[in-house]
Amino acid sequence: MALSMPLTTLVILPVTALIVTAVSTLLATASSRLASRILVRHSSSTVSFPCVDAHQARESRILSSIPSQTSPDATETGPEPPYARPLPTSYHTYHHSGPLALTYGSELPSFDMAYETWGTLNAKKDNVILLHTGLSASSHAASTELNSADGWWEKFIGPGKAIDTDQFFVICTNVLGGCYGSTGPSSFAPAISSSSAPARYGTNFPVLSIFDMVSAQFHLLDHLGIDKLYASVGSSMGAMQSLAAGWLRPERVGKVVSISGSARSSPGSVAMRFAQRSVLMADPNWNKGFYYDGLPPHTGMKLARQIATITYRSGPEWDQRFGRMLRDLPTPATAVGAVRVPALCPDFLIETYLDHQGEQFCLKYDANSLIYISKAMDLFDMTLSALESLNLTPPLPAPAPTSSAPSGSPKRRYASPPAHLTPHPPAHLPDLAAGLSPLANTPVLILGVQSDILFPVEQQREMADALRMAGNDSVRYYELGGVWGHDTFLLDVLNVGGAIRGFLS
Amino acid sequence: MALSMPLTTLVILPVTALIVTAVSTLLATASSRLASRILVRHSSSTVSFPCVDAHQARESRILSSIPSQTSPDATETGPEPPYARPLPTSYHTYHHSGPLALTYGSELPSFDMAYETWGTLNAKKDNVILLHTGLSASSHAASTELNSADGWWEKFIGPGKAIDTDQFFVICTNVLGGCYGSTGPSSFAPAISSSSAPARYGTNFPVLSIFDMVSAQFHLLDHLGIDKLYASVGSSMGAMQSLAAGWLRPERVGKVVSISGSARSSPGSVAMRFAQRSVLMADPNWNKGFYYDGLPPHTGMKLARQIATITYRSGPEWDQRFGRMLRDLPTPATAVGAVRVPALCPDFLIETYLDHQGEQFCLKYDANSLIYISKAMDLFDMTLSALESLNLTPPLPAPAPTSSAPSGSPKRRYASPPAHLTPHPPAHLPDLAAGLSPLANTPVLILGVQSDILFPVEQQREMADALRMAGNDSVRYYELGGVWGHDTFLLDVLNVGGAIRGFLS
Repeated sequence: MALSMPLTTLVILPVTALIVTAVSTLLATASSRLASRILVRHSSSTVSFPCVDAHQARESRILSSIPSQTSPDATETGPEPPYARPLPTSYHTYHHSGPLALTYGSELPSFDMAYETWGTLNAKKDNVILLHTGLSASSHAASTELNSADGWWEKFIGPGKAIDTDQFFVICTNVLGGCYGSTGPSSFAPAISSSSAPARYGTNFPVLSIFDMVSAQFHLLDHLGIDKLYASVGSSMGAMQSLAAGWLRPERVGKVVSISGSARSSPGSVAMRFAQRSVLMADPNWNKGFYYDGLPPHTGMKLARQIATITYRSGPEWDQRFGRMLRDLPTPATAVGAVRVPALCPDFLIETYLDHQGEQFCLKYDANSLIYISKAMDLFDMTLSALESLNLTPPLPAPAPTSSAPSGSPKRRYASPPAHLTPHPPAHLPDLAAGLSPLANTPVLILGVQSDILFPVEQQREMADALRMAGNDSVRYYELGGVWGHDTFLLDVLNVGGAIRGFLS
Repeated sequence: MALSMPLTTLVILPVTALIVTAVSTLLATASSRLASRILVRHSSSTVSFPCVDAHQARESRILSSIPSQTSPDATETGPEPPYARPLPTSYHTYHHSGPLALTYGSELPSFDMAYETWGTLNAKKDNVILLHTGLSASSHAASTELNSADGWWEKFIGPGKAIDTDQFFVICTNVLGGCYGSTGPSSFAPAISSSSAPARYGTNFPVLSIFDMVSAQFHLLDHLGIDKLYASVGSSMGAMQSLAAGWLRPERVGKVVSISGSARSSPGSVAMRFAQRSVLMADPNWNKGFYYDGLPPHTGMKLARQIATITYRSGPEWDQRFGRMLRDLPTPATAVGAVRVPALCPDFLIETYLDHQGEQFCLKYDANSLIYISKAMDLFDMTLSALESLNLTPPLPAPAPTSSAPSGSPKRRYASPPAHLTPHPPAHLPDLAAGLSPLANTPVLILGVQSDILFPVEQQREMADALRMAGNDSVRYYELGGVWGHDTFLLDVLNVGGAIRGFLS
């Protein structure tokens, strides 16, 4: 029996042990990790693992791009994060020099907000659409004169498109907490004294809420002299911000568009984001958030993005797109009747797809931004009880619109929705309706996708139900089919774009 | 603007650099990782991260349990994996001294198979139920005289229970590739020569298929003199094995029970298992599968289990069980109106639940077993085209049972199922029906759960449809509601147990 056999010998070379001791003295916290690395492994696999070697190869590439500390040309500045390397000449930056009070008790002493615009602000300044992004997007929603690259919503924004720039002046910001020009954990905190060295926030950055992100945006609107938005538009986390904007300042937001969003993050979506944060924070390079002077947690970021990608698409899409197909082999087996030996590294196309998505993303975004912004999504909850626990007092709704109904047909107010969209309304629905009451007089478009597993359609229905229960009789509600899952808002120009265009007109 | 400010200084202590050089010489492959660790980080967080410290604390505990190499008592054997520490006196072991040919072309020179039994084998040896486990379970399905601890299916097996040990002789094995007594990657490979040191397989272990696992079980049955099973029963991966057993030897398997299984792994389930393997293989301690003489990849295992747990339960259960509740704080805020500052480490109960599940599991199971067995699940595909690509020729079905129908009512054979369970049968359904043809005359119970996201109900329906299309008119098919998701088979004694009992009687 295997278990009764003698076990493999463990060897530690004396010189290596000496090094361990030295390192331990210098860096006590790292010692156990180092010790684990220098156990000499005398067995080795006859199998190759390109997916594992990829992490080390990536690390070598990053290290080789860091200026050598011993070369005469060495600067004193350390590496710039890769995502920050393009010079920020392609967007505008609003600098807010005063403090921004935050939901969870602290404040930012000042902040920057990157933004881009499309279309022309009219004389009355009443044609403004504020566009909110998903978790990791920049302000570059569409190409501009400053940056001709396609934006993340290129097909939705432009002359004659769903968000028609012949009619509207569109503003998109990089979200507070992000890493594409707005203040976030990778930003330098204002120096405490003139003699102290500048330092990045790292995890000394305060926990943000979706409301904080929107508050910062209203400061930008103030700066631009824009009193009232024609509409607030967003998808995914942007839908949360869109709703929060209409809630925070009902009198300043004409219409609200929420696409594949949520008014109350569910434990299921928290779980998926928790899994991402966990793999990221377990990467030793994350170093509790202080990695800006060394290697970023690139492996953790890749793993996190792989998990995220699973939540962005849907099983039915993968059934159609990948099925059980395998990657092409560099040297296909040619022997007749030969059985292909499966690899433990990515082999199915679904695996190579996820691997590729992770690899593409892992150096493009700041790990701490991912942690803080995904946490803000988890924390989002517009039930009255949750808002009250944050000392957020619901403002009054905007004044009810003048009825355009013919006389003799008084405008009807619903005490409860005409019919629940969901046959089994959740217990928190009245609480959510009470929380959403500031939006009672704001026209709202709710659009959801039946194959979305991250913001499931039940959450879309409960949002619409709660708004109607709050007395809103201007809720437009659509559900889309299709197989694109959460990413539908990026892809389905015909249906998503059509619904937006109809609602805005 | 933040980006134009001077950057943080990077410092490398000379003595540390010297050590890097020495270590690099010794262990070239580890050098870049080491270099990354000894960049001196001079910023630090004012926030504590107990979820990150937990990984180091666990590592210290494991290291302190490894016998010191310099102490006079040091053995030459290295640490025993924690999961293997209980002595294997609580199960039987069948040793197969001959080679086992494997699906993917190689062979195991010999193998062990751990098993436990319940009930009494009758004189005809025709009351045997072979029970197959899910991915990580041991042979300990229920308590025995040798091991009084509750088993993983304790409530389902025993006198008068769903699997009635007053009637049946039940055998449960630890799966081939596992780490609870059966041969797997953590086992020692037979020595090539008498002078060579014994070495564990690690990732030199061959890739396994579900069919290989079942082949090994048939060798055990041969050894026990059991010609024919009354039934083959399994849930999750066990359901795949159960189906494979009936397929491989139709004449030796009387009935097949498949609970929350699949006849063809979908890309969606492959994706979830790929995410688990990825985080595990990215743990530097995994070391391409050769960690048995040092620290196991405990952090990777914890992260993998967190992801797995998300797939085992369901969002609706978490809505009910956790909602948006937060963990109790060690020192609750008492100030009136104080806002609780959220933690980036687990704070919501859903997060602490996932964290706990990962922590509990991470040292209980062998990482390589997880990789190999989850891969075998991904590879499982009973379409005829997939079977043919493995040179697996479908055997003939068992002889059709003598009709018990009254004369004048001839037994009807279906050319196609009487009605598809799924309104949109997948394109591969005829291929799957052809593949499953050896089971045409075997009574099969298919049971699925509507809230299962890992083995979704569509897969249950396609299995039943395909069997009926293959001419099987003894398919019993149930769908369960409820919120327990994939784990329903472990929890729902009333419905799952009842269906099994009814089918077996």
